[in-house]
Amino acid sequence: MTTLITGWVAVDHIETPFAAAEDVLGGSATAAALAAALFTDVRLLAAVGEDFPDEHRRAFEPFPIDLAGLTMVKGGKTSRWHGRYHYDLNSRDTLETVLGVNDGWAPELPAGWETSEAAFLAATDPEVQQELMRRLPPASITMVDTIKFYIDTAREGFLKAMSAANFVSINESEARELAGTPSIARAGRKLLEGGAGGVIVKLGEFGAAFVSANDYFVAPGYPLEEVVDPTGAGDAFAGGFIGYLDSVAEVTPREIRRAIVYGSTVASFQVEGFGPSRLLRLTREEVEERYRQFRGLTHYEVDG
Amino acid sequence: MTTLITGWVAVDHIETPFAAAEDVLGGSATAAALAAALFTDVRLLAAVGEDFPDEHRRAFEPFPIDLAGLTMVKGGKTSRWHGRYHYDLNSRDTLETVLGVNDGWAPELPAGWETSEAAFLAATDPEVQQELMRRLPPASITMVDTIKFYIDTAREGFLKAMSAANFVSINESEARELAGTPSIARAGRKLLEGGAGGVIVKLGEFGAAFVSANDYFVAPGYPLEEVVDPTGAGDAFAGGFIGYLDSVAEVTPREIRRAIVYGSTVASFQVEGFGPSRLLRLTREEVEERYRQFRGLTHYEVDG
Repeated sequence: MTTLITGWVAVDHIETPFAAAEDVLGGSATAAALAAALFTDVRLLAAVGEDFPDEHRRAFEPFPIDLAGLTMVKGGKTSRWHGRYHYDLNSRDTLETVLGVNDGWAPELPAGWETSEAAFLAATDPEVQQELMRRLPPASITMVDTIKFYIDTAREGFLKAMSAANFVSINESEARELAGTPSIARAGRKLLEGGAGGVIVKLGEFGAAFVSANDYFVAPGYPLEEVVDPTGAGDAFAGGFIGYLDSVAEVTPREIRRAIVYGSTVASFQVEGFGPSRLLRLTREEVEERYRQFRGLTHYEVDG
Repeated sequence: MTTLITGWVAVDHIETPFAAAEDVLGGSATAAALAAALFTDVRLLAAVGEDFPDEHRRAFEPFPIDLAGLTMVKGGKTSRWHGRYHYDLNSRDTLETVLGVNDGWAPELPAGWETSEAAFLAATDPEVQQELMRRLPPASITMVDTIKFYIDTAREGFLKAMSAANFVSINESEARELAGTPSIARAGRKLLEGGAGGVIVKLGEFGAAFVSANDYFVAPGYPLEEVVDPTGAGDAFAGGFIGYLDSVAEVTPREIRRAIVYGSTVASFQVEGFGPSRLLRLTREEVEERYRQFRGLTHYEVDG
């Protein structure tokens, strides 16, 4: 079982009301790849520039992550993001985004990678997402994500990407915008009509909701007493979700619910440190322990 | 079993992006009393003015709600609130608040009401909340709520009221402010240290979290496709919670979890109409059906 992860590998400058960190390994594909690697073998497809620090590349090496697709673009600059979180850590301002090598990058699949059984295509040009999905086996499990920028500039393209994917994961505010309704439940259903097999609406610290034709499931956020840096939580969720699904014998509604809780679990670790620092030392045993605690958070007996 | 409910009975003018309603029966005590009355006998302690419409008073009559404490203040004006919700229906602007008869009102318990086995004291002057709790039997189940105004102007008083109560219910943003931390989990724990037996942090459409010395429980929001008017959801939650607890033989951790789901269930009905219109025609059978659906929303098997 192998999961293809594509998106940004970047260098971040992150400020919270309590601390700050510069030159942190970041990007959607970084968090998603490290999360998925807890469950399955990963292939990382992303572009970096000549300035990409060697220590950041080495950070991936202890994990089952194939770096043949981590492409260094000659003369290019690594993407950078500088953000500042507000007091509640739920909202943030982007102070600067440097697209760098991701500006118009058309990734090429390394030889053999078109066999990947699962794929998470983080926010990028929806045409690229569609093209990559066309290269994968029809039976592969695919998930796409996006950001407001692509909803505003490439809405039709993303709707097409979504209809070609098994799952879409999307932030609450973006789901409302894309579906044109303030109701999360209705937004989920409207996006389903677009053709995705299942819609995951990410609710930030409040967890995630999953909507499919036959199911509605809600996983709460894990009650962390200290959030260090929320960056990458949604991507860690997506990576944990797809990585777990890639590891099971059959994708059933029951396994999908478990995958959502595994995704939420990994996301709750992601925010415990700046950038991917917590995922870099996270064990599967820790994941399993918190996964079991999750059930205790929401379980109740209906009667008796 | 009898539950005392005190707070505002008011007349509201509500605007959402989709509709508006004027002269609607409103106020924290209205929603809480109607919610509690689904489970137990209610005593409603609140002040209205001479202008309080007779049809609004009659709205309570079909329910097991004793109106002996619904006090008409001679020459007084009924409290009024005018609010406008933003697109996501999660946030709102208060356009006008008329305190009217609630400005400095010191409620007097009607004869015999000091026997109430349970009480919800919605947001009001914390001195009033403390005084009312002193009048109740030591074994009564009490819950207090508050708003930002009292945290800002009577913080110490509310902390005292909280320490005298079995439960406190409080909005997420107010919990963060009162506890001085952005973490909901940590805010819950800090407020517990103040002496309440259990802290309920209301998460709006994302449900509610319950924190006690030995428990942490999260109930998601019910996935409504159409929210008409979010006003009073938190009070309906509180009324359903306390009314259910008043109806059980013993307040155990298991019953508290159920009470939170019952509270969430009633709150999900409250928002389906303007003001209390949905609660006015809600049956216990409808509550039970949605209560069972709630479990399906969050349940998953850990293994196998």
